[in-house]
Amino acid sequence: MEDKKALWSGRFAGSTADKMQKFSQSLDTDWSFFREDIAGSRAHGKMLLKVGLLTAEEQQKIDQALLEIETEIEQGDFKPDIALEDVHMNIEARLIEKLGPMGAKIHTARSRNDQVATDYRLFMKKRIREIMQQQDALLNALINRAEKDIDVFLPGFTHLQHAQPVSLGHFWMAYFWKFHRDFNRMAAAFDQADQCPLGAGALAGTTLPIDRHYSAKLLDFTNVTENSLDTVSDRDYLLEFLFASSTFMLHISRLCEDLILWNTQEFDFIELPDAYCTGSSMMPNKKNPDALELMRGKTSGVLASLNDLMINLKGLPLTYNRDMQEDKRPVFHTLDTLEEILGLLPDLLNGVTMKSASIKQHLQKGFLLATDIAEYLVSKGVPFRHTHHIVGQAVQYCLENNKEFADLSLDEWGKFSDSIGEDLLSVLSIEAAVDRRSSFGGTARSEVKRQIKKATSLLETI
Amino acid sequence: MEDKKALWSGRFAGSTADKMQKFSQSLDTDWSFFREDIAGSRAHGKMLLKVGLLTAEEQQKIDQALLEIETEIEQGDFKPDIALEDVHMNIEARLIEKLGPMGAKIHTARSRNDQVATDYRLFMKKRIREIMQQQDALLNALINRAEKDIDVFLPGFTHLQHAQPVSLGHFWMAYFWKFHRDFNRMAAAFDQADQCPLGAGALAGTTLPIDRHYSAKLLDFTNVTENSLDTVSDRDYLLEFLFASSTFMLHISRLCEDLILWNTQEFDFIELPDAYCTGSSMMPNKKNPDALELMRGKTSGVLASLNDLMINLKGLPLTYNRDMQEDKRPVFHTLDTLEEILGLLPDLLNGVTMKSASIKQHLQKGFLLATDIAEYLVSKGVPFRHTHHIVGQAVQYCLENNKEFADLSLDEWGKFSDSIGEDLLSVLSIEAAVDRRSSFGGTARSEVKRQIKKATSLLETI
Amino acid sequence: MEDKKALWSGRFAGSTADKMQKFSQSLDTDWSFFREDIAGSRAHGKMLLKVGLLTAEEQQKIDQALLEIETEIEQGDFKPDIALEDVHMNIEARLIEKLGPMGAKIHTARSRNDQVATDYRLFMKKRIREIMQQQDALLNALINRAEKDIDVFLPGFTHLQHAQPVSLGHFWMAYFWKFHRDFNRMAAAFDQADQCPLGAGALAGTTLPIDRHYSAKLLDFTNVTENSLDTVSDRDYLLEFLFASSTFMLHISRLCEDLILWNTQEFDFIELPDAYCTGSSMMPNKKNPDALELMRGKTSGVLASLNDLMINLKGLPLTYNRDMQEDKRPVFHTLDTLEEILGLLPDLLNGVTMKSASIKQHLQKGFLLATDIAEYLVSKGVPFRHTHHIVGQAVQYCLENNKEFADLSLDEWGKFSDSIGEDLLSVLSIEAAVDRRSSFGGTARSEVKRQIKKATSLLETI
Amino acid sequence: MEDKKALWSGRFAGSTADKMQKFSQSLDTDWSFFREDIAGSRAHGKMLLKVGLLTAEEQQKIDQALLEIETEIEQGDFKPDIALEDVHMNIEARLIEKLGPMGAKIHTARSRNDQVATDYRLFMKKRIREIMQQQDALLNALINRAEKDIDVFLPGFTHLQHAQPVSLGHFWMAYFWKFHRDFNRMAAAFDQADQCPLGAGALAGTTLPIDRHYSAKLLDFTNVTENSLDTVSDRDYLLEFLFASSTFMLHISRLCEDLILWNTQEFDFIELPDAYCTGSSMMPNKKNPDALELMRGKTSGVLASLNDLMINLKGLPLTYNRDMQEDKRPVFHTLDTLEEILGLLPDLLNGVTMKSASIKQHLQKGFLLATDIAEYLVSKGVPFRHTHHIVGQAVQYCLENNKEFADLSLDEWGKFSDSIGEDLLSVLSIEAAVDRRSSFGGTARSEVKRQIKKATSLLETI
Repeated sequence: MEDKKALWSGRFAGSTADKMQKFSQSLDTDWSFFREDIAGSRAHGKMLLKVGLLTAEEQQKIDQALLEIETEIEQGDFKPDIALEDVHMNIEARLIEKLGPMGAKIHTARSRNDQVATDYRLFMKKRIREIMQQQDALLNALINRAEKDIDVFLPGFTHLQHAQPVSLGHFWMAYFWKFHRDFNRMAAAFDQADQCPLGAGALAGTTLPIDRHYSAKLLDFTNVTENSLDTVSDRDYLLEFLFASSTFMLHISRLCEDLILWNTQEFDFIELPDAYCTGSSMMPNKKNPDALELMRGKTSGVLASLNDLMINLKGLPLTYNRDMQEDKRPVFHTLDTLEEILGLLPDLLNGVTMKSASIKQHLQKGFLLATDIAEYLVSKGVPFRHTHHIVGQAVQYCLENNKEFADLSLDEWGKFSDSIGEDLLSVLSIEAAVDRRSSFGGTARSEVKRQIKKATSLLETI
Repeated sequence: MEDKKALWSGRFAGSTADKMQKFSQSLDTDWSFFREDIAGSRAHGKMLLKVGLLTAEEQQKIDQALLEIETEIEQGDFKPDIALEDVHMNIEARLIEKLGPMGAKIHTARSRNDQVATDYRLFMKKRIREIMQQQDALLNALINRAEKDIDVFLPGFTHLQHAQPVSLGHFWMAYFWKFHRDFNRMAAAFDQADQCPLGAGALAGTTLPIDRHYSAKLLDFTNVTENSLDTVSDRDYLLEFLFASSTFMLHISRLCEDLILWNTQEFDFIELPDAYCTGSSMMPNKKNPDALELMRGKTSGVLASLNDLMINLKGLPLTYNRDMQEDKRPVFHTLDTLEEILGLLPDLLNGVTMKSASIKQHLQKGFLLATDIAEYLVSKGVPFRHTHHIVGQAVQYCLENNKEFADLSLDEWGKFSDSIGEDLLSVLSIEAAVDRRSSFGGTARSEVKRQIKKATSLLETI
Repeated sequence: MEDKKALWSGRFAGSTADKMQKFSQSLDTDWSFFREDIAGSRAHGKMLLKVGLLTAEEQQKIDQALLEIETEIEQGDFKPDIALEDVHMNIEARLIEKLGPMGAKIHTARSRNDQVATDYRLFMKKRIREIMQQQDALLNALINRAEKDIDVFLPGFTHLQHAQPVSLGHFWMAYFWKFHRDFNRMAAAFDQADQCPLGAGALAGTTLPIDRHYSAKLLDFTNVTENSLDTVSDRDYLLEFLFASSTFMLHISRLCEDLILWNTQEFDFIELPDAYCTGSSMMPNKKNPDALELMRGKTSGVLASLNDLMINLKGLPLTYNRDMQEDKRPVFHTLDTLEEILGLLPDLLNGVTMKSASIKQHLQKGFLLATDIAEYLVSKGVPFRHTHHIVGQAVQYCLENNKEFADLSLDEWGKFSDSIGEDLLSVLSIEAAVDRRSSFGGTARSEVKRQIKKATSLLETI
Repeated sequence: MEDKKALWSGRFAGSTADKMQKFSQSLDTDWSFFREDIAGSRAHGKMLLKVGLLTAEEQQKIDQALLEIETEIEQGDFKPDIALEDVHMNIEARLIEKLGPMGAKIHTARSRNDQVATDYRLFMKKRIREIMQQQDALLNALINRAEKDIDVFLPGFTHLQHAQPVSLGHFWMAYFWKFHRDFNRMAAAFDQADQCPLGAGALAGTTLPIDRHYSAKLLDFTNVTENSLDTVSDRDYLLEFLFASSTFMLHISRLCEDLILWNTQEFDFIELPDAYCTGSSMMPNKKNPDALELMRGKTSGVLASLNDLMINLKGLPLTYNRDMQEDKRPVFHTLDTLEEILGLLPDLLNGVTMKSASIKQHLQKGFLLATDIAEYLVSKGVPFRHTHHIVGQAVQYCLENNKEFADLSLDEWGKFSDSIGEDLLSVLSIEAAVDRRSSFGGTARSEVKRQIKKATSLLETI
């Protein structure tokens, strides 16, 4: 069919090889843009009417036909043709099929370069907004867990060694703040996408009297891009999205690592909900934390996606180069990964059961209250650096004698420092130790409650 | 000397192997923090005085001794000892050497974990601010070049093929907007760093009655971190810096690519200043664009630095793990790279000479005005998609007959379309073609001037 | 249907969430393994018969049913069920459906861990072999071009500046050697894959009296893996494949860059075949080197795939962790990318036309014979370092007077050195200059012919 | 001083900016090449004598002077001058200082491009050989540990969950095979480096009658590169080294992860040697596995180095571009990292103490013998898939009743299957369970011994 010839074929003597057609098409990704492409064309049509480049009749017919095409696609009646390369050419060819030469007028004062940029930015705004809603749900789930678990105490770790006891509420809130920063980065990526490129033309703008601010307004863009060469060559908004996704996934990977460790037979801090575990085909005993492992594993794909697009763009001359068509695969993969994970994680977190008895046993190990004893000695006037040495020797003594702090008598304590008195005993309570750390941002329950209050009010303003 | 024993040696039966000491030390990087470490300790001392954990006499002596140590280091009198691992331990050991046990009191209510975090954030704030000043200079240099070169026209490229003519001012401004976004990302990284971690302790805060907001104020931090576990495990501010640096370097690499191409014997658009070129030891004819190549080449080191820190952090459990000591090498390399490049680039850009005669010859090639002729036909009522075909055939005709558009007679033009008249000739001017593209953000000189005005006012508000 | 319950469901009280099922399934990638899964099971069945764990009747029925299932899948009659997670479970469930409890016996002495490893290695051996065949075709295409273009001379570049003239045959052979190294790396990846993991069990081997060497022989594996823990945790063979692919793509990206430059209006060295170019929707003049740009652009996806799998594996404890399920996406993407590119590139290279007249013009520029003149002076007894200076001054003189070397009179030459005589003129021939560089591996045509001969004999031994 | 002017200054009108000099110098890395540079020049001199381009007297004087320069550098008497850019120019300038114009003759028929390539390849051969020796020591350390620990049993993990019991000897041997593959890859990188580039000239060979095979023989290179354009543009040998280093570091990171987990208070499988741990400045209780964490942390720097050089090379046109000067930083960093880690790790592994009593307690947890019971049932004629279900229900029963398998009576077992008899009891021994897995490559001690024997003989042939 004549209309289906690639629209730039006039200049070419030869014909395009089939393999090349398959190689260069982008329908496998950009067909996802069909709604944005139609929305963009409808807005462009209205703008062309406003500036006199379309008549009212032309604009109405085009608008109507575009709506019909959208329905055809939604209902599965219109399948894209690979010979037409991409979503834009497919929809335009269908428009011409419906309206004849009038259909071709929609491409007045527009190039595929600014058209695809418009579609992509509209698409990203929609998807980023959805992800931010999901992130909001995750943030709420963390606050809920923090409220519920504020009275659960567990070892805090540095170097994966017992360090000091903490409230589990404090732990969940640590991730709240991490994910909250990710949320803000995602919002910054949204703002970066929220610049209307329509009207930048192929690279240099257009000679026709278009009104870019009007198009932008119709498409709900906050701003209009300032420079056509920059517009056509820019992918910063995608990089910002991939970066916000990468830091999010790094935090996911750390949370999953914590929970995977807690779920081992050795830590035995938690019971995971069955729904997020699977078993083994060979070992009937296994209940594996598959969802957590997969989330952690999917981190690499997102980090590599950022790496991918950066490598792609490195050293490309202005403005558009076809290399940049490869900007979709890593971004789409990242969008899908985040949506899947965010679709599961709040429910999974809600379903985690803390195994209090087991945790309590672990709280006896590793001399968790060593710092407290040191600070007790400071309060008795011993310089901190000396207290450190004193408690270090007590730890060494316990290790050699296979004891824990709780097992030491006051006499034994006395060997390490004259400053130790009977009031040491009140120091040796996990609960008291947690609540004593009431410095701003510390693990004391009073401070965790303060965080929860602040976090809740932050979410209310989103 | 007894004081020089690692301060945590009480707990250990064996001794640290020499190789291990070399392996685990961080002096080769963190010695750069000595000013921040001393500033942090001085502020911490003042805070300890305020809350009653130091007497006025103690605080004054400590403060005085810290100032002396700073001078000793600046004058090269105090060399760090690798046996003391890092900058923090070295300075503290020197303090104890000077003041005896009183010196040890500075570490009251503080851990190396929050101490190093404070030093690093202070350091990043200083360095990022310096980079932003350099970026501001680069932005100004681009505006200056745009003003100077607004009347120079050259081919605009897509796919590295001649597309449409543009003003060189428009080209420089395209990079202005790219680097302006980088500047804003760098500012966001600064804000991310601008959270005071001091007082987070080892991981859980402290039992002592510290005043974190007072310390923060003394150190000129805008905010105080909210959660001690998050504080100790967080490296987002470094990732944001590395990301802002990576997008900056991507833009650098693209600008360098453009200029390297323009500097070839084939393009011959520019003459580079001798100061930024070098020659060959074998080929006397060479004048190589070394500075530009090196800048482009250094892009990979910055992108890889972001990759590096992300890989490092992936899957680490809370809170601090020694892996994170490796957070300095990639960041320092990036800081140095940006500073070096920003130290050269504005001067290099100022020194570029445009070779007008050569550029003009190139403007005749590649049918740069094809779009203009198509749009001329649109203005005659021909549907755009048809005009595309018409001009495509004219191009094909020229290629077959070894002609350029300027060589065609009106008769020849007439073969392609009845709508072509004598007024076509006025279309065939590069200067007019540039100025016709006066849509918002287009390459018309009026639009370039608008951009320059807006850009200038943006820089004034920095 | 009862058989379709996940086979490990006995241990679980709750049920698997739908979203989790979708999240954890791997059918979208591993369904590609169906042939290998069936081949692996058939070999496993034969081995079980040999060691007495299956009767002859059982083995025959299972074998027959497996063949039927393969046909069902090939004919599209058997669609996988996502509830059954992966290709292995789907095929096994179908086997049980066909044979009842007897079907379940195929999983005797096998775990999904060694089963999937076997499938994946079989699959990689097949695909790598195909890629090596395509690489062989590319190597042949380069030899053919080198033979054809040995008498075409063009500027050789360093720093993208004219350096010395070279034979185009030499240029093509440079890429021959690069791609030949990639071919060898691909062969090493094949050898790495060629180790049979079947029988490693879930992680520790099996208590049943299997014969792993027999299974390996049936499946055409050269070796059997030595350690079951290593076997289950190892992905080195995939990393080697991704690395061999990454260096290949780096070389592709450099070749594409060279050709994209040569295809500019400015270089104008080549005419690309229309079949591998596309046009612009807005600019009728464009004939863009899309295939080359896309190939260069697809480099980032392959490099990032290597980065992806490396990040995934970093820091994973032994042995299998579900993170590793994500090992397929980057590998499959890389396999497809290489196959597509290798499917196009030999034909594209064959279709490139050299524009001799245009190239000849460029050979006059950039003082390509500067080194020759310096070496001429060496032959007259001038120390090389001085000759460099002499010719440098001649270049400077030409630049200031807008001349090329060919334009200088002997008198003018004489100003730079007394050693220059009439015999200089014979030096100033591009053809002679190329052929004079007859040191081993130099660009002289005699040397290019030597390379072609050696390369041809290397390919004959593949 | 006149001699110190950059040797290509004849062609330049302006002078090089100081900042540019600092930016473009490479002395901070390539000064490490001084021995290789001198060795290369000495060999080049001998070759020039052989082919008649130097007289015997010239060659002897140059050779003597080069030896003197080497001594001057070794004794610290000769400091490089940054104005001379790199190691090559510094040494050559010193040679000219010593010998006058005669010194300049050493650069006859040589370019910096092939000179630096020669130095770098010689340097890599030396360093890779050293690393391979260290890797050999690590492989021996693993064999030694495997022999020593063959009778220690511990839980084998998949998904970080107890799976089946294994011999610790089997675990160490798993890492043996991983590191053995890395050793082989390192050997391949050595072979890749072992190609002599000297004589490739700047890019096209030379017109002078050199003997490249003679130079190669003098420098102990196995082969001579085939194509000068390829030679100058090739960095594959560095990529292969970085890849072999990356897979090595991935394996290091996994081993460290395993040991860090085993060293937690929760696992408590091992005691680390004090020499490889450090303490906390705040928490006297801490004994942190710093060396292991740092090794794991340093993985990212090596992976990123591979990424770095790949990004650098992507899309560079032939032949040399100054971007490639940045090939040293990532490679040097990787060399140093591997040497440091390999310098520590064998000793660290030797120093690990297994905590048998604690491990034994863990062996009771997690139903490690579930597979054995299932295979016991298979031996009774129950289809494997059914046995899986039976044991799964037994696990579920234990979890609900807070029991381990060892706690169940035969009556209780009988509830799950009629096929269970008294002989089940003999199955429930960890030692027997390990030894039953005697399939080739399984964890049975007989199989571990076979591996040790094979591994030992492999190392003997290195």
